[in-house]
Amino acid sequence: VTDAVPRAEIVSVGSELLTGATVDTNAAFLAGELTRLGFEVAGVRQLADDRRVLATAFAEARARSALVVVSGGLGPTHDDLTREGLADALGESLAEDPALVERLRKRFRAYGPMPATNLRQALRIASAQVLENPIGSAPGWWVDRDDSVVALLPGVPSEMRRMWTDAVSVRLTSRFDLRPLHVRTVRTFGLGESMLAERLGELVATPPRRGVTIGIYARDDGVHVRFETRADGSVVDALVERVRSLLGDDVYGTDHDELPRVALAALAQAGAASVSTVEVGTDGALAAILAGVPAEDGVARFAGGLVLADTSAVSAPPPADAVLRLVLQPASDSGRSRAEVSLDGPPSLSLTTDRVRIHGSGPQRLRRSAFAALDQVRRAAVESAASRSPHRAPL
Amino acid sequence: VTDAVPRAEIVSVGSELLTGATVDTNAAFLAGELTRLGFEVAGVRQLADDRRVLATAFAEARARSALVVVSGGLGPTHDDLTREGLADALGESLAEDPALVERLRKRFRAYGPMPATNLRQALRIASAQVLENPIGSAPGWWVDRDDSVVALLPGVPSEMRRMWTDAVSVRLTSRFDLRPLHVRTVRTFGLGESMLAERLGELVATPPRRGVTIGIYARDDGVHVRFETRADGSVVDALVERVRSLLGDDVYGTDHDELPRVALAALAQAGAASVSTVEVGTDGALAAILAGVPAEDGVARFAGGLVLADTSAVSAPPPADAVLRLVLQPASDSGRSRAEVSLDGPPSLSLTTDRVRIHGSGPQRLRRSAFAALDQVRRAAVESAASRSPHRAPL
Repeated sequence: VTDAVPRAEIVSVGSELLTGATVDTNAAFLAGELTRLGFEVAGVRQLADDRRVLATAFAEARARSALVVVSGGLGPTHDDLTREGLADALGESLAEDPALVERLRKRFRAYGPMPATNLRQALRIASAQVLENPIGSAPGWWVDRDDSVVALLPGVPSEMRRMWTDAVSVRLTSRFDLRPLHVRTVRTFGLGESMLAERLGELVATPPRRGVTIGIYARDDGVHVRFETRADGSVVDALVERVRSLLGDDVYGTDHDELPRVALAALAQAGAASVSTVEVGTDGALAAILAGVPAEDGVARFAGGLVLADTSAVSAPPPADAVLRLVLQPASDSGRSRAEVSLDGPPSLSLTTDRVRIHGSGPQRLRRSAFAALDQVRRAAVESAASRSPHRAPL
Repeated sequence: VTDAVPRAEIVSVGSELLTGATVDTNAAFLAGELTRLGFEVAGVRQLADDRRVLATAFAEARARSALVVVSGGLGPTHDDLTREGLADALGESLAEDPALVERLRKRFRAYGPMPATNLRQALRIASAQVLENPIGSAPGWWVDRDDSVVALLPGVPSEMRRMWTDAVSVRLTSRFDLRPLHVRTVRTFGLGESMLAERLGELVATPPRRGVTIGIYARDDGVHVRFETRADGSVVDALVERVRSLLGDDVYGTDHDELPRVALAALAQAGAASVSTVEVGTDGALAAILAGVPAEDGVARFAGGLVLADTSAVSAPPPADAVLRLVLQPASDSGRSRAEVSLDGPPSLSLTTDRVRIHGSGPQRLRRSAFAALDQVRRAAVESAASRSPHRAPL
């Protein structure tokens, strides 16, 4: 086992990425996966469907990095040139693979005659192994030559992700000597980034051990403190516990503890098996978030929600054990707004706040107000539990 | 005026872009803006906060392209290294700019003492002009040297966009000889990409004039046919009319005609001044979309919506002149699902469909079902208008 972390690069191919017509979500997915597996992602590029540009970029990336993951440009049309670009970079030539031709014909039997142009998808260089695409017509390639691996994946996100999971990640873990990244996250709500950094003090300023990186990320569902290490995971576990105790009730969970689920669990704990919502000024952000929480024992069921444009509409929410109300005021010129949150429900958990500050603009402001309402429910449960537990005198 | 289209490159700086923690939306915004202004975007890169890597990348990009637009890495902390990277690439040194120091101190007066580390944001190279940042602490740079321009912008999307609009785009149009791109879009609903391409036939296969590019993009609100040219815009206008007549009622608009607004206008036309919604299985996608349509004369007002988890809940939607109901069935194993749409409202526009096919998965499936419901409303209006207009015999 060596200490070196292998370098990877990501290339996304498609002229639509260079005209702003499409946001490249594939690169972020692949970057996350490669980092987690144990690669250092040294760079990401988006490039046009241009054979010469691609050939140069592939050759440069292979010279620098042990792995190059490419998505896009594997379609059947004349402007899908990823195959040609890699062939040029490697000095190999393309030839029809009879097995791929047969596979394409079989696939098209269900849809009618195969356009002749699709035969381009049966082209292969000698050093490429085929990666199956069970849900699309573009096969992928795995090219392991001269101490460097290039993987070509389709650009359609669902096909790319499926091929990654089924075929690429397993090959990578057996081909490379990888130390996976340990990632742990502490999730908070109600603190700004700078306030949070101040509360954590030297913990953030000077990481306590080499090999641990700390990131603070502002998200719609609060500020996340993220620790990463390729070394011993227990170091990071201890840091997580220290952050929890420094931040107290502003922490709502760790790792995969989602705020909506935490709030719905607090409601169930307080005796409400179901909850419905009434929201004004949020374009339905609260209902959208709650509707997305999977049903589960010990978690209140979302019975439905009422989305209103203003407070004048008179209508009743779907019947439920508890009703959560959220009114988001329009944003001021300085970009701040406030939300009013109330909960009619179990006596131990009723709440009325008339001033939660919401920052941000656009859809972000709306989603943040919904998370702020859910955080109010969580806090009410924390306070209610604290008031019920007897204060103990120190022994 | 020369015929050459100046090349631009985009660099997004930030290690969080290489670990998958953040999706790079800045690059897509800048790519769209640069293309529209009249640049050819030759490449986009995401790079880590690494001084040497950045210096190399900036030098390479300047050698290839007339313009390099960089976002990110202008913050106050030690890992914000974009300034240093560009100074190295240009062989210049950084010095504190007294005017920038004063500006920072003034800005911080409102918040309390300025951390010393923020002084890094007052550093400047001699050839950099300062770009004002009215809503953040990171000033931008405009560096015009040796026939190549580099613009440094903050990474926070709202600050980047504001600086782009206020300071960068105007400088670019006066500095470069640009021919803006003419873009026109035909928006359709109800046709798949390949069916649409078949209906358009040779119009798509062989563009009728040089200098016009045609793209077909599947979006949640239907399939868009996009024409672009840097030459005479009237060529593209004629193409748009030809596509409209080839596709008939599957076209719901052009350019900025949004489907929700088209449907709400159809409702107003039929006599419904307001509409409310009841939706099941969609996580509130329909209410979210309708709530986002700005109020306007001639367009039905969205009075509110009821979001339900299943059809068993009994509750009334907010009162309105028309009620649009959408029930989305769970997706089958093959990834298809169907939606039922009905409208109680003006007699001329009532509708019941029990089978609209919805493709896709995840949030996309939900949004597509909402757009499918709105398309049903639009189609009902088209059919109602057709049945009212007397059939004329040819002269």
